[in-house]
Amino acid sequence: MSWLEQSIKSPCEQSILAANNRQQQLTKPPGSLGQLETLAIQLAGLQASETPHIDTIAISIFAADHGIAEEQVSAFPQAVTAEMIRNFAHGGAAISVLAKQLNANLRVSNLGTVSELETIAGVEDNRLAAGTANFSKAPAMTEEQCQQALAIGKKHIDQANADIFIGGEMGIANTTSATALACALLQKPASVLTGPGTGINHKTLRHKQAVIEAALDLHQANPEQPLECLRLLGGFEIAALTGAFIRGAQVGMPLLVDGFIASIAALTALRYQPDIAPWLILGHQSAEPGHKAIVAALDKSPLLQLDMRLGEASGAACAIPLLQLACTLHNTMATFDSANISAATL
Amino acid sequence: MSWLEQSIKSPCEQSILAANNRQQQLTKPPGSLGQLETLAIQLAGLQASETPHIDTIAISIFAADHGIAEEQVSAFPQAVTAEMIRNFAHGGAAISVLAKQLNANLRVSNLGTVSELETIAGVEDNRLAAGTANFSKAPAMTEEQCQQALAIGKKHIDQANADIFIGGEMGIANTTSATALACALLQKPASVLTGPGTGINHKTLRHKQAVIEAALDLHQANPEQPLECLRLLGGFEIAALTGAFIRGAQVGMPLLVDGFIASIAALTALRYQPDIAPWLILGHQSAEPGHKAIVAALDKSPLLQLDMRLGEASGAACAIPLLQLACTLHNTMATFDSANISAATL
Repeated sequence: MSWLEQSIKSPCEQSILAANNRQQQLTKPPGSLGQLETLAIQLAGLQASETPHIDTIAISIFAADHGIAEEQVSAFPQAVTAEMIRNFAHGGAAISVLAKQLNANLRVSNLGTVSELETIAGVEDNRLAAGTANFSKAPAMTEEQCQQALAIGKKHIDQANADIFIGGEMGIANTTSATALACALLQKPASVLTGPGTGINHKTLRHKQAVIEAALDLHQANPEQPLECLRLLGGFEIAALTGAFIRGAQVGMPLLVDGFIASIAALTALRYQPDIAPWLILGHQSAEPGHKAIVAALDKSPLLQLDMRLGEASGAACAIPLLQLACTLHNTMATFDSANISAATL
Repeated sequence: MSWLEQSIKSPCEQSILAANNRQQQLTKPPGSLGQLETLAIQLAGLQASETPHIDTIAISIFAADHGIAEEQVSAFPQAVTAEMIRNFAHGGAAISVLAKQLNANLRVSNLGTVSELETIAGVEDNRLAAGTANFSKAPAMTEEQCQQALAIGKKHIDQANADIFIGGEMGIANTTSATALACALLQKPASVLTGPGTGINHKTLRHKQAVIEAALDLHQANPEQPLECLRLLGGFEIAALTGAFIRGAQVGMPLLVDGFIASIAALTALRYQPDIAPWLILGHQSAEPGHKAIVAALDKSPLLQLDMRLGEASGAACAIPLLQLACTLHNTMATFDSANISAATL
């Protein structure tokens, strides 16, 4: 049996009940902390503790190039994938700054830039190929490549010693790949889910949409086989994220999901193993228009709605302080009894 | 001339331009950090610095009782106002926990509980009266009381040595007072703006609405005179918040506004001195249904939408990490040039 088929851990019902009971006693009108209450209760179940905490944070960025980039679907040249890998390692990228500020452990994995990179301190060389194949002409990945990419995501979870895991990505043209995958999984046309990604004009957007539509016609991917959809249309970094999410739910690691690309990886994982649902927390609602449909399919409420659309785990990272505040409120507020506060009378 | 009429400080246009220019150079697609970008640029203007920062945080909680509570409009007994003042000081309330976690300076001011309180370390005794008058029968405040409450808010700003100010409130029945004030300012009926506050059943909600409607009929408050609307229908803590917001914009203190009650104080301040608009940052969208109309009138985008409805500055406090992350990203991300990242080509 492949590791992928291992069963998903169940959240601890007893901790959920205890945490819910605690929330009802804290000195505030019931429910008045809104999503911070449900978040603390969810984390209690995931961490199997009435008093959950987010002290150690693991962030993994998976980067790779995409053969589909040769169809001119992105605003940025393909060289940017490698350039940004260096920027992650040198501390200049948004996620580098956020990870430092949040005291998170940031790992960067190169799953397949088009060119081999020099050795960079802080970057793991996991290159599976010089980018994926151009999925407008052939499957994006071989079966072996897809399994290898999934396993790299698994490895990051197995090696993460943290209270929560965030997966991020970098890869020029990866909104094209992720959109195609989402279209296949949700059986929606490219016209509904395609957006501007890093920023393209209307003409290029229509071209991107046509490229995706043609690829969907070519592959006829079966939504009942999510990992096959991933192999045909995805990318190495999307597969690594998918593997990380499946593994996280198997071993009991709370998963804070970033925006458009990461959410589609989460959806792929969820379609493959529906029991992972409780392990997913959505960090933010992306400005990429197709994200709304993905969020609806995940059936989750994003914590932040700040019109972010950068990827590289940045939106999820920005939600970390909310998780921490939710836990601290839950764990340390006084109760009506301990603070001698009168109960509601009406 | 009263201090209230002093002119409002203008944000620094040069710092706004410099910050905007900096944002365009950072290693991310332009605009991809969404509201975090506009927030950093706004703060640059308010702090007159290309590189703004949120290191020191002043939180003032203004608490007071309301004569209108005798109309049975709240789920909680009036004793809770005093009980929660003790809870703020003893560290058990949500805002106490948040202030500690955020390393913020928390001040608590008692502007008028119904009973005199014992001396409590950390609570300032600014009692103006044993609560406001019942505004269903008489003006809530005398002119002198309203001026005194506004001045207490001013004093908190004048004494705050901080990068940002958050004002919060506590006062049983204060959603009734704030809703009446909002109805007067926006010329909307109570049926549109009245909500459940801390949580009341449908029958009590209809009663609350009727009490507000009758009071609006009684006072016929003139929306062109916002401070008079405040005196007739408001509360001591709402007046203190209004005074703090006016003073903050006069002296150049960025103001992070909390939910329903605080937003109505901000709206009162804004109607009195429209130039304060750039100094206001909305922390969150409250679950109290009437808040949407107030947010629309303030013409601001709340940073958080977490279904919170606790008041006591809790929603604004939860937004502080976003301001800090926005500044850190703005100040420390690499530029395209410094990191050798290729520019967009499409």
